[in-house]
Amino acid sequence: MIPERIKALDAADPLRPFRGRFALPAGVIYLDGNSLGALPLAARDALLKTAATEWGEGLIRSWNDADWIGAPLRVGDKIARLIGASPGEVAVADSTSVNLYKLLAAGLAARPGRRVILTETGNFPTDLYIAGGAAGAVGAKVKAVAPEAVEAAIDEEIAIVLLTHVHYKTAARRDMARITAAAHAAGALMLWDLSHSVGAVEVDLDACGADLAVGCGYKYLNGGPGAPAFLFVAKGVQDELASPLTGWMGHAAPFAFDDAWSPAAGIRRFLTGTPPVLGLAALEAAVDLALEVPPAALEAKARALWSLFADTMAERLGGEDFRLITSADPARRGSHIAYAHADGFAIMQALIDRGVIGDFRDPDVMRFGLTPLYLGFEDVWRAVDILSQIMASGAWREAPPRRPGQVT
Amino acid sequence: MIPERIKALDAADPLRPFRGRFALPAGVIYLDGNSLGALPLAARDALLKTAATEWGEGLIRSWNDADWIGAPLRVGDKIARLIGASPGEVAVADSTSVNLYKLLAAGLAARPGRRVILTETGNFPTDLYIAGGAAGAVGAKVKAVAPEAVEAAIDEEIAIVLLTHVHYKTAARRDMARITAAAHAAGALMLWDLSHSVGAVEVDLDACGADLAVGCGYKYLNGGPGAPAFLFVAKGVQDELASPLTGWMGHAAPFAFDDAWSPAAGIRRFLTGTPPVLGLAALEAAVDLALEVPPAALEAKARALWSLFADTMAERLGGEDFRLITSADPARRGSHIAYAHADGFAIMQALIDRGVIGDFRDPDVMRFGLTPLYLGFEDVWRAVDILSQIMASGAWREAPPRRPGQVT
Repeated sequence: MIPERIKALDAADPLRPFRGRFALPAGVIYLDGNSLGALPLAARDALLKTAATEWGEGLIRSWNDADWIGAPLRVGDKIARLIGASPGEVAVADSTSVNLYKLLAAGLAARPGRRVILTETGNFPTDLYIAGGAAGAVGAKVKAVAPEAVEAAIDEEIAIVLLTHVHYKTAARRDMARITAAAHAAGALMLWDLSHSVGAVEVDLDACGADLAVGCGYKYLNGGPGAPAFLFVAKGVQDELASPLTGWMGHAAPFAFDDAWSPAAGIRRFLTGTPPVLGLAALEAAVDLALEVPPAALEAKARALWSLFADTMAERLGGEDFRLITSADPARRGSHIAYAHADGFAIMQALIDRGVIGDFRDPDVMRFGLTPLYLGFEDVWRAVDILSQIMASGAWREAPPRRPGQVT
Repeated sequence: MIPERIKALDAADPLRPFRGRFALPAGVIYLDGNSLGALPLAARDALLKTAATEWGEGLIRSWNDADWIGAPLRVGDKIARLIGASPGEVAVADSTSVNLYKLLAAGLAARPGRRVILTETGNFPTDLYIAGGAAGAVGAKVKAVAPEAVEAAIDEEIAIVLLTHVHYKTAARRDMARITAAAHAAGALMLWDLSHSVGAVEVDLDACGADLAVGCGYKYLNGGPGAPAFLFVAKGVQDELASPLTGWMGHAAPFAFDDAWSPAAGIRRFLTGTPPVLGLAALEAAVDLALEVPPAALEAKARALWSLFADTMAERLGGEDFRLITSADPARRGSHIAYAHADGFAIMQALIDRGVIGDFRDPDVMRFGLTPLYLGFEDVWRAVDILSQIMASGAWREAPPRRPGQVT
């Protein structure tokens, strides 16, 4: 029985109508939108139109007639509105990992007297790995310090400070303005990974003076599995930065077929290969949906879902060994909630078996993504209710062991 | 009136039934499959299934249940069968440009005593640009010599020889076995760009002893606009090569979320970011279609289409100023036919206006792609017939001028 106060929250939610714009399977409470966002119906329709009409009938002509060639910057300009960037500062291209490489390599080349990328231990692994690859390729190095030691470690040897705005595991949110200012005071470039921010919490890159950012299309942006990623380069540093991945789409005149490289002006120079048109079509439809809501309203809803989750957990499961590892301060967290529990893997499997889909991250972290556009307060209440039943019955003890290679 | 001998060619064509497996718009003769292949109906269906069912209903579970996570190597193993590679030698990832960067950077690092990438002038521009970027990042350089001078220029200072197997403009085909042997004799690595080969002409990488290759998914493979690309690394050199783009999908245990980089064994180490699942779904369906035909049968059909095009041009337009720039020797050409004509741009526009879609490349080259799976002999004959009418009437003189930024 859903309490009336919970039903009243959904009834009063201005974002409630957006739920109907997504394909949400019956019997599922989907709390993993921080890993893969749900399918916007418009994204499915856009994919079909792009394939059947633009590709099937338009064929090669669609590069011009459907403006496929303009998609990386057109969708980039739309994402810019979600992250406080200006037109011409964001491009959609490649994966988050490849974009990180391009910007880190460009930043190291632009700060030749400095040979260190500063980041934190426990950052999302691909950020650490790519930083190591980009640094290693040019004889630089990565300095990874404990999260709380990052600000004190920013000094004159640092070329780039690389941090994730919202942490993938704990949902800890960094103070973007303060750390960016600290990086600049030491003469370093600041690069933010927005993968767990965009579409869920407010970001204002230009107001913070950030130089560089990357982000993911398939989490809170709901752009589809392996959606193209985006990169941000502030207007003020675009001219001094050059990606080593000098692919033809970053050329000043890609269809002139000149032998000599000449970088395009502005953000376009950070494009590399032929744009992934199908992925871009799904992503654009998803971003258009997000743009129907001001980012502040997205964050407000996410905060309210989060509070209800935490309060209901405390109320119903306060006696169990769930340790909240996400900050209770809304300014210091993103849009998922994470609990450590020694039996977290088995408990999460029992939840998934009952249609409550969150995920697990080693060694003991259960993550629940609270996507503002398609989740309701009833979903949150019911998820915790089902978890209570699992704990009360001990049903999680029967969950199958983790399979080798299992992704979530 | 289509001559009976042409109709007879189609009637006797064993590949004729494949035409019905593609969406080909009415009123169009599509001779640009060397730039963007036509839509396989199975690719459209696969996209819809992947979006509506796997993403929409399976959500995050599809990484395991629909084996999204296995797609890059699963589709790679399928492409391997089209290019004479072994299982575990091909991965689908990123764009051709990004894959080129990864392999060139890896190759330069593996040959530290050699600081030169050798290639040819007039190679596909992104190959030249990316070579410059990869070389420049580590203080190496690119030596681009005239096509006919490449073999003589292979010496002890060359780290990597980078050539395109079939030239994008002229369709000139390189002798893969001979040049690979010459590169090896000098101690260099051999990297082939198969973008204009795969799906149209026979390739046998392993028999030739090639070390490295890249290729495109959206030309003769019909994988869709901006389809994911592929890369090949021969078993024998996989262990000594390491991509600097050390993204999490190339890690030995991507979901262990270790801070420290540890490359996966085998071809998997050349993956970077999260796989582009939607693009992979379309590409896999297209590759499955190509695998229904032995590569030798694809090439035989392509050769026959080519001969009919050239013969009909000679017969009907021998008196006009069309200069064939593709080799008449089938062993020395790919699957498109190219003519230089001083008014090539305007003539191509007139053709496109009449539904014959080829394309134009500066300064004066008209390209006609002869895709074996979906083109018939009647298409070829009618295309030349329409071109004859355009030339006889002078209608091309009314074609609109080229628009700035126009792609084809």
